[in-house]
Amino acid sequence: MVRAMTQNIYDNDAFFAGYSKLARSVDGLAGAPEWPALRALLPPLQGRNVLDLGCGFGWVCRWAREQGATRVLGVDVSEKMLEHARATSPDPAVSYLRADLETYEPEPNAYDLVYSSLTLHYLLALDRLIASVHRALKPGGSFVFSAEHPIFTAPSAPGWQDAGGRKIWPVDRYLAEGPRTTNWLADGVVKQHRTIGTYLTLLLQAGFTITHVEEWGPTAEQIAAKPEWAVERDRPPFLLVGARR
Amino acid sequence: MVRAMTQNIYDNDAFFAGYSKLARSVDGLAGAPEWPALRALLPPLQGRNVLDLGCGFGWVCRWAREQGATRVLGVDVSEKMLEHARATSPDPAVSYLRADLETYEPEPNAYDLVYSSLTLHYLLALDRLIASVHRALKPGGSFVFSAEHPIFTAPSAPGWQDAGGRKIWPVDRYLAEGPRTTNWLADGVVKQHRTIGTYLTLLLQAGFTITHVEEWGPTAEQIAAKPEWAVERDRPPFLLVGARR
Repeated sequence: MVRAMTQNIYDNDAFFAGYSKLARSVDGLAGAPEWPALRALLPPLQGRNVLDLGCGFGWVCRWAREQGATRVLGVDVSEKMLEHARATSPDPAVSYLRADLETYEPEPNAYDLVYSSLTLHYLLALDRLIASVHRALKPGGSFVFSAEHPIFTAPSAPGWQDAGGRKIWPVDRYLAEGPRTTNWLADGVVKQHRTIGTYLTLLLQAGFTITHVEEWGPTAEQIAAKPEWAVERDRPPFLLVGARR
Repeated sequence: MVRAMTQNIYDNDAFFAGYSKLARSVDGLAGAPEWPALRALLPPLQGRNVLDLGCGFGWVCRWAREQGATRVLGVDVSEKMLEHARATSPDPAVSYLRADLETYEPEPNAYDLVYSSLTLHYLLALDRLIASVHRALKPGGSFVFSAEHPIFTAPSAPGWQDAGGRKIWPVDRYLAEGPRTTNWLADGVVKQHRTIGTYLTLLLQAGFTITHVEEWGPTAEQIAAKPEWAVERDRPPFLLVGARR
Protein backbone atom coordinates (compact mmCIF):
# COMPACT_ATOMS: atom_id res chain seq x y z
CA MET A 1 0.00 0.00 0.00
CA VAL A 2 1.33 3.41 -0.90
CA ARG A 3 0.56 6.08 1.66
CA ALA A 4 0.33 9.69 0.69
CA MET A 5 2.92 11.83 2.42
CA THR A 6 1.52 14.80 4.29
CA GLN A 7 2.10 18.09 2.54
CA ASN A 8 5.36 19.39 4.02
CA ILE A 9 4.29 23.03 3.99
CA TYR A 10 6.85 24.04 6.62
CA ASP A 11 9.65 23.59 4.09
CA ASN A 12 7.88 25.88 1.63
CA ASP A 13 10.04 29.03 1.54
CA ALA A 14 7.18 31.50 1.79
CA PHE A 15 5.42 29.54 4.53
CA PHE A 16 8.62 29.07 6.52
CA ALA A 17 9.46 32.75 6.26
CA GLY A 18 6.00 33.68 7.49
CA TYR A 19 5.92 31.03 10.22
CA SER A 20 9.34 32.11 11.49
CA LYS A 21 7.93 35.57 12.21
CA LEU A 22 5.01 34.36 14.33
CA ALA A 23 5.16 35.10 18.05
CA ARG A 24 5.30 31.38 18.78
CA SER A 25 8.43 31.11 16.62
CA VAL A 26 10.18 34.24 17.84
CA ASP A 27 9.22 34.03 21.52
CA GLY A 28 8.79 30.26 21.75
CA LEU A 29 6.45 28.96 24.42
CA ALA A 30 5.91 32.46 25.80
CA GLY A 31 4.47 33.38 22.39
CA ALA A 32 1.97 30.51 22.33
CA PRO A 33 -1.07 31.66 24.33
CA GLU A 34 -2.40 28.12 24.77
CA TRP A 35 0.87 26.87 26.26
CA PRO A 36 -0.03 27.49 29.94
CA ALA A 37 -3.20 25.39 29.50
CA LEU A 38 -1.35 22.67 27.64
CA ARG A 39 1.56 22.64 30.13
CA ALA A 40 -0.98 22.12 32.93
CA LEU A 41 -1.87 18.75 31.33
CA LEU A 42 1.69 17.41 31.37
CA PRO A 43 2.90 14.94 34.00
CA PRO A 44 6.08 15.64 36.02
CA LEU A 45 9.00 15.03 33.64
CA GLN A 46 11.88 14.52 36.06
CA GLY A 47 13.62 11.31 34.97
CA ARG A 48 11.11 10.67 32.18
CA ASN A 49 11.34 9.95 28.45
CA VAL A 50 9.52 12.31 26.12
CA LEU A 51 8.54 12.13 22.44
CA ASP A 52 7.41 15.32 20.69
CA LEU A 53 5.58 14.69 17.41
CA GLY A 54 5.83 17.76 15.20
CA CYS A 55 8.49 19.36 17.36
CA GLY A 56 9.19 22.26 15.00
CA PHE A 57 11.91 24.49 16.39
CA GLY A 58 12.25 22.24 19.46
CA TRP A 59 10.91 24.63 22.10
CA VAL A 60 9.08 21.92 24.02
CA CYS A 61 11.99 19.47 23.71
CA ARG A 62 14.29 21.98 25.38
CA TRP A 63 11.65 22.84 27.98
CA ALA A 64 11.23 19.13 28.81
CA ARG A 65 14.96 18.88 29.51
CA GLU A 66 14.75 21.91 31.79
CA GLN A 67 12.06 19.99 33.68
CA GLY A 68 14.49 17.13 34.19
CA ALA A 69 13.48 14.76 31.40
CA THR A 70 16.15 12.09 30.88
CA ARG A 71 15.75 11.69 27.15
CA VAL A 72 13.79 13.69 24.59
CA LEU A 73 13.14 12.89 20.95
CA GLY A 74 11.67 15.53 18.65
CA VAL A 75 10.25 14.37 15.32
CA ASP A 76 9.27 16.63 12.46
CA VAL A 77 8.90 16.42 8.69
CA SER A 78 10.43 19.86 8.15
CA GLU A 79 14.15 19.86 7.51
CA LYS A 80 14.25 23.64 7.89
CA MET A 81 12.73 23.52 11.35
CA LEU A 82 14.94 20.65 12.50
CA GLU A 83 18.06 22.47 11.31
CA HIS A 84 17.06 25.38 13.51
CA ALA A 85 16.21 23.06 16.42
CA ARG A 86 19.55 21.21 16.19
CA ALA A 87 21.49 24.48 16.11
CA THR A 88 19.81 25.84 19.26
CA SER A 89 21.36 24.74 22.58
CA PRO A 90 22.73 21.36 21.48
CA ASP A 91 22.12 18.76 24.21
CA PRO A 92 23.17 15.11 23.94
CA ALA A 93 19.94 14.06 25.69
CA VAL A 94 17.79 15.69 23.02
CA SER A 95 17.64 14.10 19.57
CA TYR A 96 15.84 15.30 16.49
CA LEU A 97 14.61 13.01 13.76
CA ARG A 98 13.19 13.88 10.40
CA ALA A 99 10.24 11.61 9.67
CA ASP A 100 6.82 11.67 8.07
CA LEU A 101 4.23 11.13 10.80
CA GLU A 102 2.00 9.36 8.26
CA THR A 103 4.31 6.35 8.52
CA TYR A 104 6.60 6.98 11.52
CA GLU A 105 6.64 4.16 14.04
CA PRO A 106 8.11 5.19 17.40
CA GLU A 107 9.87 2.71 19.67
CA PRO A 108 7.30 0.67 21.63
CA ASN A 109 6.95 0.93 25.44
CA ALA A 110 9.57 3.66 25.51
CA TYR A 111 7.92 6.93 26.54
CA ASP A 112 6.28 8.45 29.61
CA LEU A 113 4.90 11.34 27.58
CA VAL A 114 4.04 11.72 23.92
CA TYR A 115 3.30 15.33 23.11
CA SER A 116 2.07 16.95 19.93
CA SER A 117 1.29 20.61 19.36
CA LEU A 118 -0.80 21.77 16.39
CA THR A 119 0.36 18.93 14.16
CA LEU A 120 -2.30 16.21 14.05
CA HIS A 121 -4.64 18.23 11.83
CA TYR A 122 -2.13 17.88 9.00
CA LEU A 123 -2.24 14.08 9.02
CA LEU A 124 -4.25 11.74 6.84
CA ALA A 125 -3.52 8.49 8.68
CA LEU A 126 -4.32 9.74 12.16
CA ASP A 127 -5.81 6.39 13.22
CA ARG A 128 -2.48 4.70 12.46
CA LEU A 129 -0.46 7.33 14.33
CA ILE A 130 -2.67 7.27 17.43
CA ALA A 131 -2.41 3.47 17.61
CA SER A 132 1.39 3.71 17.35
CA VAL A 133 1.46 6.41 20.05
CA HIS A 134 -0.43 4.03 22.32
CA ARG A 135 2.18 1.34 21.69
CA ALA A 136 5.04 3.84 22.18
CA LEU A 137 3.87 4.80 25.67
CA LYS A 138 4.72 2.86 28.76
CA PRO A 139 1.61 1.68 30.66
CA GLY A 140 0.28 4.72 32.53
CA GLY A 141 2.06 7.09 30.14
CA SER A 142 0.40 10.27 28.87
CA PHE A 143 -0.53 11.49 25.43
CA VAL A 144 -1.17 15.24 25.37
CA PHE A 145 -1.94 17.10 22.18
CA SER A 146 -3.39 20.23 20.72
CA ALA A 147 -4.99 20.57 17.31
CA GLU A 148 -6.86 23.25 15.46
CA HIS A 149 -10.42 23.20 16.74
CA PRO A 150 -12.92 21.62 14.33
CA ILE A 151 -15.08 24.75 14.39
CA PHE A 152 -12.01 26.58 13.14
CA THR A 153 -11.23 24.06 10.39
CA ALA A 154 -14.76 23.12 9.26
CA PRO A 155 -15.88 26.06 7.09
CA SER A 156 -15.63 26.00 3.33
CA ALA A 157 -14.97 29.75 3.55
CA PRO A 158 -13.31 30.41 6.93
CA GLY A 159 -13.00 33.94 8.24
CA TRP A 160 -14.93 36.31 10.47
CA GLN A 161 -18.03 37.88 8.95
CA ASP A 162 -19.84 40.98 10.07
CA ALA A 163 -23.40 40.39 11.20
CA GLY A 164 -24.89 43.68 12.27
CA GLY A 165 -22.11 44.79 14.59
CA ARG A 166 -21.27 41.29 15.79
CA LYS A 167 -18.66 39.06 14.27
CA ILE A 168 -19.75 35.55 13.38
CA TRP A 169 -17.78 32.50 12.27
CA PRO A 170 -19.52 30.88 9.28
CA VAL A 171 -19.78 27.18 10.11
CA ASP A 172 -20.68 24.73 7.40
CA ARG A 173 -19.45 21.21 6.48
CA TYR A 174 -18.77 20.44 10.13
CA LEU A 175 -19.53 16.74 9.71
CA ALA A 176 -17.86 16.55 6.28
CA GLU A 177 -14.46 15.37 7.44
CA GLY A 178 -11.52 15.61 5.08
CA PRO A 179 -9.14 18.09 3.51
CA ARG A 180 -9.50 21.84 3.81
CA THR A 181 -7.27 24.08 1.75
CA THR A 182 -6.53 27.50 3.21
CA ASN A 183 -4.18 30.33 2.42
CA TRP A 184 -2.44 30.81 5.76
CA LEU A 185 1.11 32.15 5.35
CA ALA A 186 1.21 30.45 1.93
CA ASP A 187 -1.38 29.48 -0.65
CA GLY A 188 -2.79 25.97 -0.69
CA VAL A 189 -2.06 24.83 2.86
CA VAL A 190 -3.93 21.54 3.30
CA LYS A 191 -5.33 20.53 6.68
CA GLN A 192 -7.50 17.57 7.60
CA HIS A 193 -10.77 18.56 9.26
CA ARG A 194 -12.00 16.11 11.89
CA THR A 195 -14.67 16.47 14.56
CA ILE A 196 -13.97 16.36 18.28
CA GLY A 197 -15.96 13.12 18.29
CA THR A 198 -13.54 11.60 15.81
CA TYR A 199 -10.41 12.64 17.71
CA LEU A 200 -11.82 11.12 20.90
CA THR A 201 -13.14 8.00 19.17
CA LEU A 202 -9.70 7.31 17.66
CA LEU A 203 -8.19 7.57 21.15
CA LEU A 204 -10.78 5.21 22.64
CA GLN A 205 -10.36 2.73 19.77
CA ALA A 206 -6.60 2.69 20.35
CA GLY A 207 -7.19 1.81 24.02
CA PHE A 208 -6.60 5.22 25.61
CA THR A 209 -8.43 6.53 28.65
CA ILE A 210 -9.49 10.13 28.06
CA THR A 211 -8.38 12.36 30.92
CA HIS A 212 -8.94 15.91 29.62
CA VAL A 213 -10.84 17.66 26.83
CA GLU A 214 -10.61 21.44 26.57
CA GLU A 215 -11.81 23.84 23.92
CA TRP A 216 -9.24 26.55 24.39
CA GLY A 217 -9.76 30.29 24.22
CA PRO A 218 -7.74 33.16 25.65
CA THR A 219 -8.16 33.98 29.33
CA ALA A 220 -9.48 37.30 30.62
CA GLU A 221 -5.90 38.26 31.51
CA GLN A 222 -4.69 37.48 27.99
CA ILE A 223 -7.52 39.51 26.48
CA ALA A 224 -6.75 42.42 28.80
CA ALA A 225 -3.21 42.36 27.40
CA LYS A 226 -4.31 41.79 23.79
CA PRO A 227 -7.89 42.99 23.30
CA GLU A 228 -7.87 41.81 19.67
CA TRP A 229 -7.89 38.23 20.96
CA ALA A 230 -11.38 38.61 22.49
CA VAL A 231 -13.01 37.31 19.31
CA GLU A 232 -11.20 33.99 19.76
CA ARG A 233 -13.67 33.24 22.55
CA ASP A 234 -16.47 33.43 19.99
CA ARG A 235 -14.94 30.51 18.12
CA PRO A 236 -12.24 28.50 19.92
CA PRO A 237 -9.04 28.16 17.88
CA PHE A 238 -7.62 25.07 19.57
CA LEU A 239 -8.62 21.72 21.02
CA LEU A 240 -6.49 20.39 23.90
CA VAL A 241 -6.70 16.72 24.83
CA GLY A 242 -5.11 14.53 27.46
CA ALA A 243 -5.20 10.73 27.47
CA ARG A 244 -3.53 7.91 29.36
CA ARG A 245 -2.37 4.51 28.17
CA MET B 1 -28.68 27.82 49.52
CA VAL B 2 -31.62 28.49 47.26
CA ARG B 3 -31.36 26.87 43.86
CA ALA B 4 -33.18 28.25 40.87
CA MET B 5 -35.66 25.82 39.41
CA THR B 6 -35.24 25.11 35.73
CA GLN B 7 -37.82 26.76 33.54
CA ASN B 8 -40.55 24.15 33.08
CA ILE B 9 -41.30 25.08 29.51
CA TYR B 10 -42.93 21.74 28.71
CA ASP B 11 -45.93 22.68 30.85
CA ASN B 12 -46.36 25.93 28.92
CA ASP B 13 -49.58 25.40 26.91
CA ALA B 14 -48.25 26.76 23.62
CA PHE B 15 -44.96 24.87 23.95
CA PHE B 16 -46.68 21.63 24.91
CA ALA B 17 -49.11 21.93 22.01
CA GLY B 18 -46.24 22.47 19.59
CA TYR B 19 -44.04 19.78 21.11
CA SER B 20 -46.89 17.28 20.99
CA LYS B 21 -47.01 17.66 17.20
CA LEU B 22 -43.31 16.92 16.60
CA ALA B 23 -42.46 13.64 14.90
CA ARG B 24 -40.66 12.50 18.05
CA SER B 25 -43.87 13.00 20.04
CA VAL B 26 -46.29 11.50 17.51
CA ASP B 27 -44.10 8.63 16.28
CA GLY B 28 -41.98 8.17 19.39
CA LEU B 29 -38.55 6.70 18.93
CA ALA B 30 -39.19 6.13 15.23
CA GLY B 31 -39.62 9.88 14.91
CA ALA B 32 -36.30 10.72 16.58
CA PRO B 33 -33.60 10.44 13.91
CA GLU B 34 -30.77 10.21 16.43
CA TRP B 35 -32.38 7.30 18.28
CA PRO B 36 -30.62 4.50 16.32
CA ALA B 37 -27.23 6.05 17.18
CA LEU B 38 -28.20 6.55 20.82
CA ARG B 39 -29.69 3.05 21.13
CA ALA B 40 -26.38 1.62 19.86
CA LEU B 41 -24.70 3.04 23.00
CA LEU B 42 -27.02 1.27 25.44
CA PRO B 43 -26.00 -1.91 27.27
CA PRO B 44 -28.21 -5.03 27.18
CA LEU B 45 -31.18 -4.28 29.44
CA GLN B 46 -32.45 -7.78 30.22
CA GLY B 47 -32.84 -7.98 33.99
CA ARG B 48 -31.47 -4.46 34.51
CA ASN B 49 -32.66 -1.33 36.32
CA VAL B 50 -33.05 1.83 34.30
CA LEU B 51 -33.46 5.50 35.20
CA ASP B 52 -34.57 7.95 32.50
CA LEU B 53 -33.95 11.61 33.38
CA GLY B 54 -36.29 13.81 31.39
CA CYS B 55 -38.43 10.89 30.27
CA GLY B 56 -41.12 13.03 28.63
CA PHE B 57 -43.88 10.85 27.21
CA GLY B 58 -42.07 7.71 28.41
CA TRP B 59 -41.10 6.25 25.05
CA VAL B 60 -37.70 5.02 26.23
CA CYS B 61 -39.11 3.73 29.53
CA ARG B 62 -41.53 1.52 27.61
CA TRP B 63 -38.83 0.47 25.14
CA ALA B 64 -36.53 -0.51 28.04
CA ARG B 65 -39.24 -2.80 29.37
CA GLU B 66 -39.62 -4.39 25.94
CA GLN B 67 -35.87 -5.10 26.12
CA GLY B 68 -36.42 -6.97 29.37
CA ALA B 69 -35.52 -4.31 31.95
CA THR B 70 -36.72 -5.37 35.40
CA ARG B 71 -37.52 -1.92 36.75
CA VAL B 72 -37.71 1.45 35.04
CA LEU B 73 -38.11 4.89 36.59
CA GLY B 74 -38.89 7.88 34.42
CA VAL B 75 -38.38 11.33 35.93
CA ASP B 76 -39.59 14.58 34.43
CA VAL B 77 -40.52 18.07 35.58
CA SER B 78 -43.49 18.27 33.23
CA GLU B 79 -46.80 17.20 34.72
CA LYS B 80 -48.43 17.25 31.30
CA MET B 81 -45.90 14.83 29.85
CA LEU B 82 -46.02 12.51 32.85
CA GLU B 83 -49.83 12.38 32.67
CA HIS B 84 -49.52 11.22 29.09
CA ALA B 85 -46.75 8.75 29.99
CA ARG B 86 -48.75 7.24 32.86
CA ALA B 87 -51.82 6.83 30.69
CA THR B 88 -49.94 4.96 27.94
CA SER B 89 -49.55 1.20 28.49
CA PRO B 90 -49.55 1.16 32.30
CA ASP B 91 -46.95 -1.30 33.57
CA PRO B 92 -46.26 -1.98 37.28
CA ALA B 93 -42.53 -2.23 36.54
CA VAL B 94 -42.44 1.31 35.14
CA SER B 95 -42.82 4.24 37.52
CA TYR B 96 -42.99 7.91 36.74
CA LEU B 97 -41.89 10.62 39.15
CA ARG B 98 -42.30 14.35 38.87
CA ALA B 99 -39.13 16.03 40.04
CA ASP B 100 -36.88 18.97 39.26
CA LEU B 101 -33.56 17.64 38.02
CA GLU B 102 -31.85 20.67 39.56
CA THR B 103 -32.31 19.06 42.97
CA TYR B 104 -33.42 15.45 42.32
CA GLU B 105 -31.28 12.87 44.08
CA PRO B 106 -31.76 9.35 42.71
CA GLU B 107 -31.30 6.26 44.84
CA PRO B 108 -27.58 5.42 45.16
CA ASN B 109 -26.07 2.24 43.68
CA ALA B 110 -29.42 1.32 42.17
CA TYR B 111 -29.16 1.52 38.38
CA ASP B 112 -27.43 -0.29 35.54
CA LEU B 113 -28.30 2.47 33.08
CA VAL B 114 -29.06 6.15 33.53
CA TYR B 115 -30.34 7.63 30.29
CA SER B 116 -31.19 11.20 29.38
CA SER B 117 -32.37 12.48 26.02
CA LEU B 118 -32.20 16.18 25.14
CA THR B 119 -32.68 17.30 28.73
CA LEU B 120 -29.33 18.26 30.24
CA HIS B 121 -29.06 21.51 28.27
CA TYR B 122 -31.99 22.87 30.31
CA LEU B 123 -30.20 22.45 33.64
CA LEU B 124 -28.27 25.01 35.65
CA ALA B 125 -26.78 22.66 38.26
CA LEU B 126 -25.44 20.07 35.83
CA ASP B 127 -22.34 19.39 37.95
CA ARG B 128 -24.59 18.38 40.85
CA LEU B 129 -26.77 16.13 38.68
CA ILE B 130 -23.84 14.36 37.03
CA ALA B 131 -22.29 13.64 40.44
CA SER B 132 -25.61 12.22 41.63
CA VAL B 133 -25.92 10.10 38.47
CA HIS B 134 -22.49 8.65 39.24
CA ARG B 135 -23.68 7.73 42.74
CA ALA B 136 -26.94 6.31 41.39
CA LEU B 137 -25.19 3.86 39.10
CA LYS B 138 -23.94 0.49 40.20
CA PRO B 139 -20.19 0.05 39.57
CA GLY B 140 -19.80 -0.66 35.86
CA GLY B 141 -23.15 0.96 35.10
CA SER B 142 -23.67 3.20 32.07
CA PHE B 143 -24.67 6.82 31.68
CA VAL B 144 -25.84 7.60 28.14
CA PHE B 145 -27.17 10.99 27.16
CA SER B 146 -27.88 13.31 24.30
CA ALA B 147 -27.91 17.09 24.44
CA GLU B 148 -28.21 19.88 21.96
CA HIS B 149 -24.81 20.34 20.35
CA PRO B 150 -22.89 23.40 21.58
CA ILE B 151 -22.49 24.68 18.02
CA PHE B 152 -26.28 24.64 17.87
CA THR B 153 -26.77 26.43 21.18
CA ALA B 154 -23.85 28.89 21.09
CA PRO B 155 -25.01 31.67 18.73
CA SER B 156 -26.50 34.87 20.00
CA ALA B 157 -28.66 34.82 16.84
CA PRO B 158 -29.12 31.18 15.84
CA GLY B 159 -30.49 30.28 12.43
CA TRP B 160 -29.17 29.45 8.98
CA GLN B 161 -27.86 32.36 6.94
CA ASP B 162 -27.35 32.54 3.20
CA ALA B 163 -23.74 33.08 2.16
CA GLY B 164 -23.60 33.17 -1.62
CA GLY B 165 -25.56 29.99 -2.30
CA ARG B 166 -24.27 28.14 0.75
CA LYS B 167 -25.96 28.06 4.10
CA ILE B 168 -23.82 28.93 7.09
CA TRP B 169 -24.47 28.67 10.82
CA PRO B 170 -23.39 31.91 12.54
CA VAL B 171 -21.24 30.85 15.47
CA ASP B 172 -20.35 33.35 18.13
CA ARG B 173 -20.12 33.22 21.94
CA TYR B 174 -19.04 29.58 21.80
CA LEU B 175 -16.92 29.86 24.95
CA ALA B 176 -19.43 32.13 26.71
CA GLU B 177 -21.29 29.45 28.62
CA GLY B 178 -24.63 30.28 30.14
CA PRO B 179 -28.25 30.88 29.27
CA ARG B 180 -29.53 31.23 25.72
CA THR B 181 -33.08 32.33 25.13
CA THR B 182 -34.71 31.11 21.92
CA ASN B 183 -38.17 31.11 20.47
CA TRP B 184 -38.62 27.42 19.69
CA LEU B 185 -42.29 26.37 19.87
CA ALA B 186 -42.83 29.17 22.42
CA ASP B 187 -41.18 32.49 23.13
CA GLY B 188 -38.50 32.74 25.77
CA VAL B 189 -37.33 29.13 25.99
CA VAL B 190 -34.16 29.17 28.11
CA LYS B 191 -31.37 26.67 27.52
CA GLN B 192 -27.92 26.48 29.09
CA HIS B 193 -25.10 26.57 26.57
CA ARG B 194 -22.06 24.49 27.52
CA THR B 195 -19.09 23.35 25.46
CA ILE B 196 -18.30 19.72 24.72
CA GLY B 197 -15.22 20.21 26.87
CA THR B 198 -17.39 21.17 29.83
CA TYR B 199 -19.78 18.20 29.43
CA LEU B 200 -16.82 15.82 29.34
CA THR B 201 -14.94 17.57 32.16
CA LEU B 202 -17.99 17.30 34.42
CA LEU B 203 -18.12 13.56 33.71
CA LEU B 204 -14.41 13.12 34.45
CA GLN B 205 -14.66 15.18 37.64
CA ALA B 206 -17.53 12.99 38.84
CA GLY B 207 -15.37 9.89 38.33
CA PHE B 208 -16.81 8.62 35.04
CA THR B 209 -14.83 6.89 32.32
CA ILE B 210 -15.76 8.32 28.94
CA THR B 211 -16.65 5.55 26.49
CA HIS B 212 -18.23 7.37 23.54
CA VAL B 213 -18.45 10.90 22.12
CA GLU B 214 -20.41 11.48 18.94
CA GLU B 215 -21.43 14.66 17.17
CA TRP B 216 -24.58 13.43 15.53
CA GLY B 217 -25.87 14.24 12.08
CA PRO B 218 -28.32 12.41 9.83
CA THR B 219 -27.04 9.44 7.87
CA ALA B 220 -26.96 9.27 4.07
CA GLU B 221 -30.03 7.01 4.22
CA GLN B 222 -31.92 9.50 6.38
CA ILE B 223 -31.03 12.34 4.03
CA ALA B 224 -32.14 10.28 1.03
CA ALA B 225 -35.52 9.93 2.75
CA LYS B 226 -35.64 13.57 3.94
CA PRO B 227 -33.39 15.73 1.74
CA GLU B 228 -34.19 18.80 3.87
CA TRP B 229 -32.10 17.23 6.65
CA ALA B 230 -28.86 17.48 4.64
CA VAL B 231 -28.08 20.87 6.14
CA GLU B 232 -27.92 19.29 9.60
CA ARG B 233 -24.56 17.82 8.57
CA ASP B 234 -23.25 21.36 8.17
CA ARG B 235 -23.88 21.99 11.86
CA PRO B 236 -24.57 18.95 14.06
CA PRO B 237 -27.76 19.31 16.09
CA PHE B 238 -26.96 16.79 18.84
CA LEU B 239 -24.13 15.56 21.02
CA LEU B 240 -24.28 11.89 22.11
CA VAL B 241 -22.14 10.73 25.02
CA GLY B 242 -21.55 7.41 26.75
CA ALA B 243 -19.77 7.00 30.08
CA ARG B 244 -19.21 4.25 32.61
CA ARG B 245 -19.05 4.37 36.40
